[in-house]
Amino acid sequence: MALNSKFFGSIILTLLCLTLLSHGNQAHAQKTNSVFGMVIHGGAGTILKKNMTPELEQAYQVKLKEALQTGYAILENNGSSMDAVEATLKILENSPLFNAGKGAVFTGDGTHELDASIMDGKTLQAGAVAGVKHVKNPIALARLVLEKSPHVMMVGDGAEEFAVQHHLERVSQYYFYTEKRWKSLQKRKNAAVKKTTMGPKKENIKLTDKEEGTVGAAALDKEGNLAAGTSTGGMTNKMFGRVGDSPIIGAGTYANNQTCAVSGTGHGEYFMRLLVAYDIHALMAYQGKSLKEAANTVIMKKLEELGGTGGIIAIDKDGNIAMPFNTAGMYRGYIRENGEAIVKIYQDKD
Amino acid sequence: MALNSKFFGSIILTLLCLTLLSHGNQAHAQKTNSVFGMVIHGGAGTILKKNMTPELEQAYQVKLKEALQTGYAILENNGSSMDAVEATLKILENSPLFNAGKGAVFTGDGTHELDASIMDGKTLQAGAVAGVKHVKNPIALARLVLEKSPHVMMVGDGAEEFAVQHHLERVSQYYFYTEKRWKSLQKRKNAAVKKTTMGPKKENIKLTDKEEGTVGAAALDKEGNLAAGTSTGGMTNKMFGRVGDSPIIGAGTYANNQTCAVSGTGHGEYFMRLLVAYDIHALMAYQGKSLKEAANTVIMKKLEELGGTGGIIAIDKDGNIAMPFNTAGMYRGYIRENGEAIVKIYQDKD
Repeated sequence: MALNSKFFGSIILTLLCLTLLSHGNQAHAQKTNSVFGMVIHGGAGTILKKNMTPELEQAYQVKLKEALQTGYAILENNGSSMDAVEATLKILENSPLFNAGKGAVFTGDGTHELDASIMDGKTLQAGAVAGVKHVKNPIALARLVLEKSPHVMMVGDGAEEFAVQHHLERVSQYYFYTEKRWKSLQKRKNAAVKKTTMGPKKENIKLTDKEEGTVGAAALDKEGNLAAGTSTGGMTNKMFGRVGDSPIIGAGTYANNQTCAVSGTGHGEYFMRLLVAYDIHALMAYQGKSLKEAANTVIMKKLEELGGTGGIIAIDKDGNIAMPFNTAGMYRGYIRENGEAIVKIYQDKD
Repeated sequence: MALNSKFFGSIILTLLCLTLLSHGNQAHAQKTNSVFGMVIHGGAGTILKKNMTPELEQAYQVKLKEALQTGYAILENNGSSMDAVEATLKILENSPLFNAGKGAVFTGDGTHELDASIMDGKTLQAGAVAGVKHVKNPIALARLVLEKSPHVMMVGDGAEEFAVQHHLERVSQYYFYTEKRWKSLQKRKNAAVKKTTMGPKKENIKLTDKEEGTVGAAALDKEGNLAAGTSTGGMTNKMFGRVGDSPIIGAGTYANNQTCAVSGTGHGEYFMRLLVAYDIHALMAYQGKSLKEAANTVIMKKLEELGGTGGIIAIDKDGNIAMPFNTAGMYRGYIRENGEAIVKIYQDKD
């Protein structure tokens, strides 16, 4: 009896403290309409300083800053987080430095297949496309699916036809060609130890920055609305028809005004099995974890334990930013109210 | 200081009690290897007794029982939950009564496009296919993707080629034809108020049992392993290339030995935006909710509030079963250790 009353007393005291903490958070959230910001990534992998030339490093930094400043200009000017995410991702899609849009990797068939998704944290509306071959900016097509179709996801020729109907800019497959990616495919094909017609075995899949990658953005606007988007060229030498996490709502992309906006990059199959982006939201919503705690739990613990590699970028409803990854490096950066673009490539300790 | 020590003391006491409770649960889980069972659905929608003939009602009941007994025979004989789910779903795919495999609905283009997914709760491995046109049993192809490819999801021609490489039974599009579904398409096309080349507007999408539906199964085997699978012919008159929730891990299908196995049916776009199947897991894992509480929260509250319709079937690691839906009816049933197949169609009060 004495133990019981002590136990219930302790529960009540704990709940009281949690309630006070939670009220504090709510009060904080209500007064933050001047808070805004954006966080982006350009892929995670074995990105090491020793393998990088100063020129290439600078090229990445310049492009990441340009992308951040594009988003910032929209947010600063009272634009929406959805507009900021789309505009920012177009900059990265149009750059041959990243595995998305121009610069996309090759499938095992020697073609390009592009995937993208976008989610609006205010309405929980989402749009996604997979396996498109002739759309210059897949992120724009994902947004069209969100806004102009009754569907969330469209793939292949159907997605392509939808782009035609909406007069979206289309390009030949040759537009996506870069010599670097073509050489990656040849190298990968030659290196395959156990080549089978069914593609590489599970155990032969290793993630490197040359073969994988994605671009992603998450933004909080002055209205307190969150949005996230992701775009990718997939995986070098993948079987054609393979879809990774980038166009999967909850795996590679998720946004919810209640908590945060997230975009992921890495070995997509693991992100799909773990529902990485949604899981960060769920840990915040259901366990009251902070963005940093939730993101670290999912990337540094759950992804790591399952054997997956990659990272995420995220911003929460209060403007907090997280960018954890368990690879050697991740192209990443963020920008806040003051307009200073912070860009990083390697692990923070480097 | 006094408050602090009291507070930390209370936290430690709470943690101690939670640890004891959790140990109790583990002990319970370890001794339940005689518990097993299976739960299935054949789609949710405006299924009303007044619109049903006794013959048709009986046909549904007979087929649902056959499916349950097929899964039961495997589980009873120490088979795996993965085998039970696949075998059960093949029965439903092969029946023209349900919108999956034979009996699939038509796209706006007059073709059939099939989607399916399966997940192993022990390993969190998953396999999914979307937009396949010539595979007799899409659930078998989803399992092949899980077992024989390094990927989780394959779509369109790539998925089709993978089926060819693995000698899976393929059929012509005509195999999927049923007069009932063809008439539904004509009716739907004629009824479209605002026909555009881009397909129906968001507000014109209404869910009826004639146009939607899915089949799904979730099983717990004697080893305590959970598995879930879902298969569908999609949505009548949908734009070709549209992918719904059935092949999306976390939306239409999810299994995790830690909590439960879930398969959903309904207006897929809402299931994708809410991550319905994963959300039930998350509420159990992160908030300690029971399967029933978690499933009701997601279907009767969150789905309802967002304006979506449908239902789920689920079984948890202790063999508890849940089958909530917010439509007039859902073809559903379950079977437990005693081998008695319980089948229902309408709301429980009917």
